[in-house]
Amino acid sequence: MREVYLENHANTRIDERVLAVMLPYFGELYGNAQSIHSLGAKSRDAIERARGQVAGLIGGRESEIYFTSCASEANNLAIKGVAEANRQKGRHVIVSEIEHFSVLNAARRLGQQGFEVTLLPVDRYGLVSPADLRKAIREDTTLVSVQHANPEIGTVQPLAELGRICREKGIAFHTDAVCTAGIVPVDVNSLEADLLTLAGAQFYGPKGAAALYVRKGVRIVPQIDGGIQENGRRAGTENVPAIVGFGVACELIQREMEANALHLLHLRDRLVRVLPEKIPHLYINGHPERHLPNNINLSVEFVEGEGMFLFLDQKGIYVSSGSACASKALKMSHVLTAIKVDTAVGQGSILLTLSKYNTTEDVDFLLAEFPPIVAKLRDMSPLYSYFQKTGQRRVAGPGTDYEHEQEENREDG
Amino acid sequence: MREVYLENHANTRIDERVLAVMLPYFGELYGNAQSIHSLGAKSRDAIERARGQVAGLIGGRESEIYFTSCASEANNLAIKGVAEANRQKGRHVIVSEIEHFSVLNAARRLGQQGFEVTLLPVDRYGLVSPADLRKAIREDTTLVSVQHANPEIGTVQPLAELGRICREKGIAFHTDAVCTAGIVPVDVNSLEADLLTLAGAQFYGPKGAAALYVRKGVRIVPQIDGGIQENGRRAGTENVPAIVGFGVACELIQREMEANALHLLHLRDRLVRVLPEKIPHLYINGHPERHLPNNINLSVEFVEGEGMFLFLDQKGIYVSSGSACASKALKMSHVLTAIKVDTAVGQGSILLTLSKYNTTEDVDFLLAEFPPIVAKLRDMSPLYSYFQKTGQRRVAGPGTDYEHEQEENREDG
Repeated sequence: MREVYLENHANTRIDERVLAVMLPYFGELYGNAQSIHSLGAKSRDAIERARGQVAGLIGGRESEIYFTSCASEANNLAIKGVAEANRQKGRHVIVSEIEHFSVLNAARRLGQQGFEVTLLPVDRYGLVSPADLRKAIREDTTLVSVQHANPEIGTVQPLAELGRICREKGIAFHTDAVCTAGIVPVDVNSLEADLLTLAGAQFYGPKGAAALYVRKGVRIVPQIDGGIQENGRRAGTENVPAIVGFGVACELIQREMEANALHLLHLRDRLVRVLPEKIPHLYINGHPERHLPNNINLSVEFVEGEGMFLFLDQKGIYVSSGSACASKALKMSHVLTAIKVDTAVGQGSILLTLSKYNTTEDVDFLLAEFPPIVAKLRDMSPLYSYFQKTGQRRVAGPGTDYEHEQEENREDG
Repeated sequence: MREVYLENHANTRIDERVLAVMLPYFGELYGNAQSIHSLGAKSRDAIERARGQVAGLIGGRESEIYFTSCASEANNLAIKGVAEANRQKGRHVIVSEIEHFSVLNAARRLGQQGFEVTLLPVDRYGLVSPADLRKAIREDTTLVSVQHANPEIGTVQPLAELGRICREKGIAFHTDAVCTAGIVPVDVNSLEADLLTLAGAQFYGPKGAAALYVRKGVRIVPQIDGGIQENGRRAGTENVPAIVGFGVACELIQREMEANALHLLHLRDRLVRVLPEKIPHLYINGHPERHLPNNINLSVEFVEGEGMFLFLDQKGIYVSSGSACASKALKMSHVLTAIKVDTAVGQGSILLTLSKYNTTEDVDFLLAEFPPIVAKLRDMSPLYSYFQKTGQRRVAGPGTDYEHEQEENREDG
C-alpha cells in the first residue's frame, strides 16, 4: 500500500546520511564524553563539532549552544531557567497564547510557584501584535517567549519587532524556533532573540537531541542538576549519537534548505490551490503570506476531524490534528480557539505537514483520495443535510443541540 | 593497538542485538508516538513493549515506568518531583552524602527553594546505617533517597532495611539503581523502593533512554511540562529508537545477567587478588563483601591519579576517576572523602569498571602494564623517595608541605 506521511511537524524521517554518521558512536566510539582518556576525547570532540554545526545554522556562537534531549526540555529550561534566575528582579513572564504546550505549561507551572503569567493574544491569523506586547510589559517582567512559527497553523511571527521591544526594556526574549529552524532561515541576531529552541528531528535529524541557544550574559538556572555537562547548565550523560546526528542534520540543511523550501512550496501551493476547488466549504487557516512552506492547516465544514483522520489513515495517508502532543484529545485545539475559528468549522480541522520526502505523487494521491472521503462523511452528517435542505448553518456551541447530536453520532459510529 | 575499556560504569558499548532492533525506528518506523494514525501506533506499541520489558527487569508494573532521557533526569524528577508534590506536607528531604551528583545537586537546588536537606553519613565502606536514617527522619520529612550501589566504590547498600523504615513512617523512598540494574538482581518490592532510577546505557543499551519507576499512589510533579507523554509526567517527543533499545537491553540482560555476573566476578577476583601482590601500598576501596561484581576502586599510595590515567591511556587502557561527571576535576572525590580515605592516598585513586566485553586477556594486559607505570611514577615522586629513605609518610592535608610539593610537581610535569 502507498503510504503518504504528512505529519512532519512532529518529526521527520531521518536522512540516511545523518544516520550513517551516527552509527559509529553507538559502536566503537562509545566513550563517555566526560572522561579524560582518548576514547572519551573522541566523544567530546564529536559533541563540540556538533555544537559548531548547530551554532552555524542559527548564527550563534558555539559557547551559546546547550544540548538537551528534546525541544520540550529546551523550552522548559528557557522558561523556568530564566524566570528562576531572575526571581529577585521580578516575577512576571509573558508568553503568547498559541505557544507549544511545553512553553505554555512551563509558564503555568511558574504560575503555581509565585510567578505571574500574561498570555498575549493573537489576531485571526495567529500574529502577536507588538503594541500588545508593549502593553503587557511591566516593571517586573523578566521574560517574554513568542514562538517563531506556530506548529499548527504555520504563521510566522514578526519576531524581530518583538525582540527589539524586549531588548529596549532589558527583558530576556525567548523564541521556540522548532518549526522554522531547518525549514526557513533562522538567525538569532536578526531575530533579536536571547534564547532560541531548535530540534533536529524536525529536519531529518534524529530524535533525542535538541538545543537551547542562550545568548552570552543571559542568566539561567539549570533544570537538570548534576554533573558538569553542558557547562553546568544541563547535567546527564550526553546522548552522543543523537547529538552527532543533530549536528550533521544542521550542516546538511544549511546547504539544502533553499532547494527543500522550493520543493515544499511547490507542493503546498498545489494543495492550497486545488483543495478548495475540489472540496467546497474548506478553509485554509493561518496567515496567507507569513506562512511556513511545509504547513497546511485546513478546516472542513460539516465533518469532524476524527472521521477524516480515520478514513485517510485507512488509505495510508497520515495527517495530524494540530499539536501532536494534544492530538489524543479530539476537541478543537487551543490555537484554533485563539484565532477564533468557528467551533463548528474548527472541529473539522486537520493538519498536513510536508517533508522533502513528499512527492508530487503524494500530493496527487491526497487530492484524489481526500475529496471522496469528505463527501462520504458529509453524507452521514445531519448538519450537512440540514444545510443542503435549508441553506442554513445551525449555531454551534457547548450545550446546543449541535453538540448533543455530535455526541450521539460518535456513539453510533 | 590493543584497547582495554575499563570505564563501564559511565556507559557500556551497545549490544549489536540491541542496535539491530533500534534501527528500523530511525528509518521506516519513524511515526510520532502521540499520533492516532497507524504509523504512530507502531511507535506507541514499541514504547509500551519497552515499558513492559523495563518493568519486567525490576519487578514493577508497566504503568509505573516513566521514560526519561537519562538517569540524571530521572533522579532530578524523583527528588524535585516528590519534594514539590509534598510541599504542603513537609519540606525536609534526606539523601546520603555519597549519592550521584544528579541526586545531591537536585537536593541542593531544593535547599535553595525553601527545603531543608539532611545528608546521611556513611561508614568507611560506604554503608548508610539504618539507625542514622531513623535519627534523621523528622515530622516534615517527605523523601529519602539512598542509592542501591555507589558508582565509584561499588558498595551495595542494605536497601530493604532503609526502605522498610521509610514505609513505616509513610515517607517516599527513592533509590538510584543505575549501578545495579542489569548487573545484579533489582526488585522494587524486595528493595521496598517507592521510586527507582535505572538506565540502559549501563548494560549494553543505548544512551538517550532511562526510566523512573514510580510506585502507584506516589505523588510526583513533572519536571518537563508540556504534552501528555508518559501519562503527563514527562513531556517531550519520545526518543523511540532509544526507548526500544532500552527495552530490549532489559529483556536480554534479564536472561544473561547471571552468566555476565559470573564472568565479571571472575575478572574482578583476579584483579583484586593480583594487583595488591604486584603493587605494594595499593588499597581496594569499598565494602569487601557487599560489592558490585564489575567495580574496582583502588588507591595507590605515593602516586597521583592523573599520572596513572595518562600512562594507562597511552597504553590504550581506559579507566576513570570516580564519578564520570566529576572526572574533569582531579581532586579527591566526594565519595572517597566521605569514606575517609586518607587524602594523600586518595589522590592516587582510579576506578576500573568491567563489562561483559572485557576478557581475561584484558585483565592480563592491565596486570602486565599497570605495575611498571606505578613504579615509574613512584620513581618521580619525592614522597616515595622520602618514604624509602625514612620509612615515614609525611602528614598530608591542605596547606602542608605535602600539598605544596604536589603543586610544584604538577607545574613541572
